[in-house]
Amino acid sequence: MTLSITDLHESVDDPALTSMTLLNELAGRFPEAISFSAGRPFEGFYDVDDLSRHLATFRSYLEDEKGLSGEQVRRTLFQYGRTKGFIHELIARQLETDEGLRVDPESIVVTTGCQEAMVLLLRALVRDARDVVLAATPNYVGFIGAARVAGAPLRDVREHDGGIDLEDLERQIRAARREGLRPRACYVVPDFANPSGARMSLTDRIALLDLAWREGILVIEDNPYSLFPAGGAAQLPTLKSLDERHQVIHLGSFAKSAFAGARVGYIIADQPVTSPGAAESVLLADHLAKLKSMVTLNTSTVAQAVIGGYLLENGCSLRRATAREAAVYRRNLTTILDRLDSVFEPGLGQDVSWNTPQGGMFVVLTLPFLADDAMLELSASKFGVLWTPMHHFYGGTDGFRQARLSFSVLTPEQISVGVDRLGKLVQDQRARRPAVLTAA
Amino acid sequence: MTLSITDLHESVDDPALTSMTLLNELAGRFPEAISFSAGRPFEGFYDVDDLSRHLATFRSYLEDEKGLSGEQVRRTLFQYGRTKGFIHELIARQLETDEGLRVDPESIVVTTGCQEAMVLLLRALVRDARDVVLAATPNYVGFIGAARVAGAPLRDVREHDGGIDLEDLERQIRAARREGLRPRACYVVPDFANPSGARMSLTDRIALLDLAWREGILVIEDNPYSLFPAGGAAQLPTLKSLDERHQVIHLGSFAKSAFAGARVGYIIADQPVTSPGAAESVLLADHLAKLKSMVTLNTSTVAQAVIGGYLLENGCSLRRATAREAAVYRRNLTTILDRLDSVFEPGLGQDVSWNTPQGGMFVVLTLPFLADDAMLELSASKFGVLWTPMHHFYGGTDGFRQARLSFSVLTPEQISVGVDRLGKLVQDQRARRPAVLTAA
Repeated sequence: MTLSITDLHESVDDPALTSMTLLNELAGRFPEAISFSAGRPFEGFYDVDDLSRHLATFRSYLEDEKGLSGEQVRRTLFQYGRTKGFIHELIARQLETDEGLRVDPESIVVTTGCQEAMVLLLRALVRDARDVVLAATPNYVGFIGAARVAGAPLRDVREHDGGIDLEDLERQIRAARREGLRPRACYVVPDFANPSGARMSLTDRIALLDLAWREGILVIEDNPYSLFPAGGAAQLPTLKSLDERHQVIHLGSFAKSAFAGARVGYIIADQPVTSPGAAESVLLADHLAKLKSMVTLNTSTVAQAVIGGYLLENGCSLRRATAREAAVYRRNLTTILDRLDSVFEPGLGQDVSWNTPQGGMFVVLTLPFLADDAMLELSASKFGVLWTPMHHFYGGTDGFRQARLSFSVLTPEQISVGVDRLGKLVQDQRARRPAVLTAA
Repeated sequence: MTLSITDLHESVDDPALTSMTLLNELAGRFPEAISFSAGRPFEGFYDVDDLSRHLATFRSYLEDEKGLSGEQVRRTLFQYGRTKGFIHELIARQLETDEGLRVDPESIVVTTGCQEAMVLLLRALVRDARDVVLAATPNYVGFIGAARVAGAPLRDVREHDGGIDLEDLERQIRAARREGLRPRACYVVPDFANPSGARMSLTDRIALLDLAWREGILVIEDNPYSLFPAGGAAQLPTLKSLDERHQVIHLGSFAKSAFAGARVGYIIADQPVTSPGAAESVLLADHLAKLKSMVTLNTSTVAQAVIGGYLLENGCSLRRATAREAAVYRRNLTTILDRLDSVFEPGLGQDVSWNTPQGGMFVVLTLPFLADDAMLELSASKFGVLWTPMHHFYGGTDGFRQARLSFSVLTPEQISVGVDRLGKLVQDQRARRPAVLTAA
C-alpha cells in the first residue's frame, strides 16, 4: 500500500525538521567542515565503563539505603514500575544541593527526557481549541516540536538580551484574551537560552512571577544550561526557587549533565488540581503520570538506574558532576567571542554583530545577508563551516539574517578556524553583493 | 495556583486508569490476596548481573562486528543518536530467525516501548476529524490509552474465540464511510490477545489481509504473546510474514521477552509515502521517526544496548531466549484450566464459564453476577483474590460479567488456591443472590 503525506498528520511535514535533515546531510557530505550547528554536549569525558559502575552504585543504594530485598531490587530494575519513576528522591536531593530548592519528591515525574515532559505538559494544558501557550521567541526547537505533536497552539512573545520581554508578554496575553482564547502558561529558559543565549535578571524573574500571578497563567521553566555560567557570572535563583504560590512548572534534564542518550528528564508539577465532587486535590504530577502511562509507561528502568548512580557518585550535585564540562564551555565561550572580535573587527565594519552571552553553549551571529538553507549549503561546500539558521527558531517569521553558533563539542583550535571560515564567507558575500550590504 | 481537572485534557480523567489505581490500591491493602490481575511477565529468571553483561556484549558487537572506534562507541552510547535507533539490524535478524520474516532494517523504528510506537502511529494516521481507527474489542488497554492521548477516534469491531470478526469489520468500515468518516487502519493482536486470549486462524489472517486490501485500510499487528503457545499449539505466521503488499504495520515489544522495565519496542513501517512534488517516496518509518523526534528523540541508548546484548547472547532468537518463560506459561495455563474444571464442575453448574486459549497469559472467566469494581473490592477483602474487570477493555460497553485472569507471575500452588477462592466468591454470590443467577 502506498500512502500520501497529505493523509498523515501535518506535524510530519515540519519545515524545521526538514532543515535539520539538511544539516545532517551537509555534515555527512562535507565531513571536513567545522560544525557550529551541533547542539550536543561535550563528549570528551565519557567513559563506557561508567555505565556498569553507575548501575552497581544504584543497586547498592536500593539494597543499603532503601533496604530492598534481592527480589525487590530485581522487580525495580526489570519490571514495569512506578509511572512517576524511582529516582525522584535523588532528584529532590540534587535540587536542594545545587539550587537550595526544596520540592516534594511526589511532585516529580521522571520522564523519557525533557522532551516527553514537554509533550505531557502541553497535552494536559490544552483542553480545547481556546487554550494557547505563550513562549519567548526565538524558541527552543524541541518545545516547538512538542507543541506541534501535542496539538498545542503557541503564541510568540518577544525576547531581548535579558530574556522574555515582559511588556510584550502582557500585551500578548491580553490580545489572546480579546480573541476569545485562554492563555494557560508561558514557557521560558531563564539561563542562557537555546538558541539566543539570553539570561533573565533576578528583577525580571520576580516580575515574571508577579505578572503571571496577576494574569492567572502558569510559568513553564526549562533550565538545562544554568550549570554553565561564563567566568564571573553569578548563579541566579531558578524561577522555581522563587515560587511561593505553585505557579512554576519546572522541567529538568540530564542530557547536558550525565548524558543525552539516556533520555532521562523530569518535571516538577506541585500544583494542586481539584475535581468536582472530590474532597481532596491531587498533584498535577499525578495527572501527568496518567498521561505518561499512555505515552511510554515508566521511564526506562535501566536508564533511571544509570542516572541514579551518576547522581549518587557525585553527592547528588550536578554542579560538582559537571565541573569539567563547565570549564570547557567557559573556555570555548571566551575563545569564540575573542575570535569573533578579531575576525570581524568591531567598530570598523559594522555589518556583522553578535551577542555576548553570560554562559551556555550558544552565540548568535547577525550577518549582512540572508542566512538560509541555500547560504548554509554554500557555507559548507565552499567555506567548510556549518551553523544553524536562526529563522527556524522563530517559526519562519524572523531571524533571517542570523546564525546560531554552538561551540560545545569543538576544540579552541576548531573554533578559531571555524570563525576564520565564517570571516571568509562574509568577505565573499561582501564582494558579491555590495548592494545588499549597503541596504543592511 | 490551584487548577481544576475540568481545565485539563480529558484523557487525564480516563475511567480505565482510575480502575487500575483501584487495583493497585487493593493489592496494597490486601497483600495476602492472590492477584490474577497483574499482567506482568514472569520474573523468576531475572538476574541483575545480566544488565552489565548485556552492555558488555553490545559494546563488543559495536567494536568487533560493526568496527566502531572507541570514540564512535562512546558517541553511540552517550550522545543523542539516530532517532530510528541502533539495534534495528539485530531486530531484523531476530525476525528472520524466529518468524522467517525479512524486513529492511531501515523500515524499523526502535521506540520507547511498544506504547510509544502506538502513539506515534496513531498520531500519524489521524490527519483530521474524519480519520478513524478500528480495533477488535475487547481491546488492549494500552492501545485504548494511546488512542486517547493521540486524539485518534476508535471504532469497535466484534471479536470471537478466533479473533476479530471479519464480517463485523467489513460492516464497521462501511458504516464509518456512510457517516463520512475515513477508516484508516485496523488493530489486531493475532496470537493470544490481551485480554481475551483469542487467536486468529491462518485462514482468517489471509482473509483479513484481503479484506483490508479491498477496503484500502492498513492492518496494525501487535504480537507480544506469539512466543508463548500452549502445548501442542503450532506457530502460525505473523500477518507481516503474509504481507506482500506493504499493508501491515507490525508492532514489536521486548517487554514479554527481555524485560518490561527497559521500555524498548519497535515498529515496522515499510509503507512508501509519496509527497506532492517529490519524485521519490519515503518510508513511513522515516515520517514516524520525525514524530518520535518531537516525543522522546532517540530511544534510550543504554536501554537499547542492554536489549541488543540480550539479543546477541541468544543468537537473535527470542524463542530461544524465552524457552524457560514459555514453559512456565504453558504449565500455568494447564494448571488454571484444570483447576477451573475441578472447581466449577462444568456440566453441573452452568453459570460459570471460561475460554480455553491456545497460549498466552490470560483466561477470561464469565460469572453469573456483575464483575465490577465493587465486586472486585469484595473479592479482595473477603475472599483474598484479585482479578481485572473485563468491561474496561470494552470501553465500558460490554463484558460486565467477565473477569480477566492473568497467570503469568503466579506459581501453580497460588493459581490453585486463587481459583479455589474464586469458587468461594461464586458460592457466596449464589447464596446471596439466587434471583440474579436464575436470570443469568
